[in-house]
Amino acid sequence: MTTECRIAAIGKHVGEVVTVHGWVYNTRSSGKLHFVILRDGTGLLQCIISKNDVSDEVFLAASELTQESSVRVSGVVREDKRAPGGYEMHVHDLHVVQLAEDYPIKLKEHGVEFLMDNRHLWLRTPRQASIMRIRHTVVKACRDFLDDRGFLLVDAPILTPAACEGTTTLFETDYFGEKAYLSQSGQLYNEANAMAFGKVYCFGPTFRAEKSKTRRHLVEFWMVEPEIAFCNLEECMQLQEEMITYIVCSVLERNARDLETLERDTEALRRVVPPFPRISYDEAVELLRSKGMDFTWGEDFGAPDETVISQAFDKPVFVHHYPAQCKAFYMQPDPDRPELVLSADLLASEGYGEIIGGGQRIHDRVVLEQRMNEHALPEDPYRWYVDLRRYGSVPHSGFGLGIERTVAWICGTQHVREVIPYPRLLNRIYP
Amino acid sequence: MTTECRIAAIGKHVGEVVTVHGWVYNTRSSGKLHFVILRDGTGLLQCIISKNDVSDEVFLAASELTQESSVRVSGVVREDKRAPGGYEMHVHDLHVVQLAEDYPIKLKEHGVEFLMDNRHLWLRTPRQASIMRIRHTVVKACRDFLDDRGFLLVDAPILTPAACEGTTTLFETDYFGEKAYLSQSGQLYNEANAMAFGKVYCFGPTFRAEKSKTRRHLVEFWMVEPEIAFCNLEECMQLQEEMITYIVCSVLERNARDLETLERDTEALRRVVPPFPRISYDEAVELLRSKGMDFTWGEDFGAPDETVISQAFDKPVFVHHYPAQCKAFYMQPDPDRPELVLSADLLASEGYGEIIGGGQRIHDRVVLEQRMNEHALPEDPYRWYVDLRRYGSVPHSGFGLGIERTVAWICGTQHVREVIPYPRLLNRIYP
Repeated sequence: MTTECRIAAIGKHVGEVVTVHGWVYNTRSSGKLHFVILRDGTGLLQCIISKNDVSDEVFLAASELTQESSVRVSGVVREDKRAPGGYEMHVHDLHVVQLAEDYPIKLKEHGVEFLMDNRHLWLRTPRQASIMRIRHTVVKACRDFLDDRGFLLVDAPILTPAACEGTTTLFETDYFGEKAYLSQSGQLYNEANAMAFGKVYCFGPTFRAEKSKTRRHLVEFWMVEPEIAFCNLEECMQLQEEMITYIVCSVLERNARDLETLERDTEALRRVVPPFPRISYDEAVELLRSKGMDFTWGEDFGAPDETVISQAFDKPVFVHHYPAQCKAFYMQPDPDRPELVLSADLLASEGYGEIIGGGQRIHDRVVLEQRMNEHALPEDPYRWYVDLRRYGSVPHSGFGLGIERTVAWICGTQHVREVIPYPRLLNRIYP
Repeated sequence: MTTECRIAAIGKHVGEVVTVHGWVYNTRSSGKLHFVILRDGTGLLQCIISKNDVSDEVFLAASELTQESSVRVSGVVREDKRAPGGYEMHVHDLHVVQLAEDYPIKLKEHGVEFLMDNRHLWLRTPRQASIMRIRHTVVKACRDFLDDRGFLLVDAPILTPAACEGTTTLFETDYFGEKAYLSQSGQLYNEANAMAFGKVYCFGPTFRAEKSKTRRHLVEFWMVEPEIAFCNLEECMQLQEEMITYIVCSVLERNARDLETLERDTEALRRVVPPFPRISYDEAVELLRSKGMDFTWGEDFGAPDETVISQAFDKPVFVHHYPAQCKAFYMQPDPDRPELVLSADLLASEGYGEIIGGGQRIHDRVVLEQRMNEHALPEDPYRWYVDLRRYGSVPHSGFGLGIERTVAWICGTQHVREVIPYPRLLNRIYP
């Protein structure tokens, strides 16, 4: 029995005999030598099979290996600066678990629709694997950051009786005879939980049945949503910039090789440190107009607007104090200018646009009920939400960070469809 | 400005002046002294307001505090063994943020339906808060355990075109003109991901539109599902017992006070160490019959059967090698007895029943296609799943751990409805 080892840890076994389980990424031969590059999900390893070192059967099997065949190889680990990953294996034994059929994804360019149809296989390629590893780090960093600061994870329900932000983009289902909807945000439940636990977050999938086909929109996406009792807008923004910095640092630290694979400009990421610039909505409108864009005060920013604003700064930028009309009903009005609300969005740098939406929530029952009336919201499903303003209401704030937009920005990928394992889009629910 | 402090950390500030934000849990008065017990989501703190130490306004305000009023208090922290939590505050100043209306949940017994209607407030009570904190630890322990062992989080989609386990218990929705279903398991996607990354897990909400009304069933529940390439049934069971032990140890370590609040017998939890007993399905049937139960070989165990089996052991017990007919189509047949499959369920101790279902998956394409035919599964939506057996198929295993059942067992609660923040049940989707 030799030591089993994953490729990412192979450097700890130089000079030893180890066994690796993996799949064939690429092969080449030169007479008495076969070079097989293996992948195991943690990295790539060059294996050298020499006619002198192995049995005739093994040497023959090695010559017949096809792309993505599954194998078990044993051999001595050597350092080699030229090899992918910096190490190689001189193979003693090779066992073919399955000889793969002709693999559809070749080591060449394919069209996006073809790759998306084969997403279950596309994930095996180095670029996609690097994105998934960075996604893992981003999710873990969000949780670690919040857990370390005393936030309690309190899961919000997915099946809900009421809509949180508009009803036109909701997925509906039959719930034992009643209508139910898929959650677009855990926001409202978070507020109840913040009154119970002080600092909370939920982290789950959210759904928007939007007919948009842009590089920033997914039908199903993941969101982390912290909510804090006794917290105002400025404190909320401070938490956000700390959290974003922590996430970016975690990726720079743990995914250096993945960022290299993606050819990501890491200098731009290293600039992400607090404080982030803060501009008001009014200032953002002025900025757009100064860049020659035609923008009507009171409207929400579209993707092209966000790109222009975010390109004016070399760090993520907060845009705060939006007009009430572009934000959800629960946003706290600005006491000085009641046509504005105490909200802030965070736009990622390099033109990536909004990754966080957040702000301070209404804590006064009368103000809330007035807003709910203006939005023609039904009373019954929101009864519990109004209750929160009866029994120990306090100023509170929170935000929602979109995982896919954040990962796309950190990876420098153009389209969010690459940063979620199985993207759900307007015309795509397969695989 | 005094130091702000949460109640859980108050012991670090003995002799200092600190400020606490919280809600009134209970009050009593004796002439010149008001005793106010505050909660802030991390614990309870007794605050003493003496007529001699505060202004007349503050003393009057303290006398008028109602249950769940929100307040900010400042004062000196003293140690006091008799106080809840072991510390108390001698208050200098108190600011009432909001005087709560008459709070519906009194410090007495209420009916379950009433409490469930007020779940957004019920969560504030000590017992429910302890359960939520233990839930947090369980979720974190699952993730830490897997992350530390090189597993990659790869999220499975929630909206899927095909059913994984039967179609009668699926929630359906309209997906831009197509039918889509809410996921019952990330299992199939996990298998694709295991072939890409070796060791993976998904962790998300799952949905069963089951009309069952038992203390073990929720319509919406959370599941963590690890999947491992190059892994057989026995290795999979070993991973499970290590993971369960890690989870239980984490709760014993981090939630001692919560377990006390729940009056949980921690001796039973301390016995949860590997190896767990393993019995075959055949042996389990014999055991049931020896206890006088009437059981037909080939059927799946019901909740009463599981209770009897689990009560025969003082640790969680694996039941392995089930008849193929009670398990999903993708389970690997036993080479020695093809009427059985290489599956194993883990039943929690103390009569709690199944918390894990898992096993080895079919890796041979021909065997898989035969099983899919027997189950009359449509070809198209499963095309990608069959692909996994064409391109480097390997023996692989995995399992699904139900978060709510695990938390219910560790907390010693009778009904899973108490261990998820907002339970979805046959007749309940509010709040």
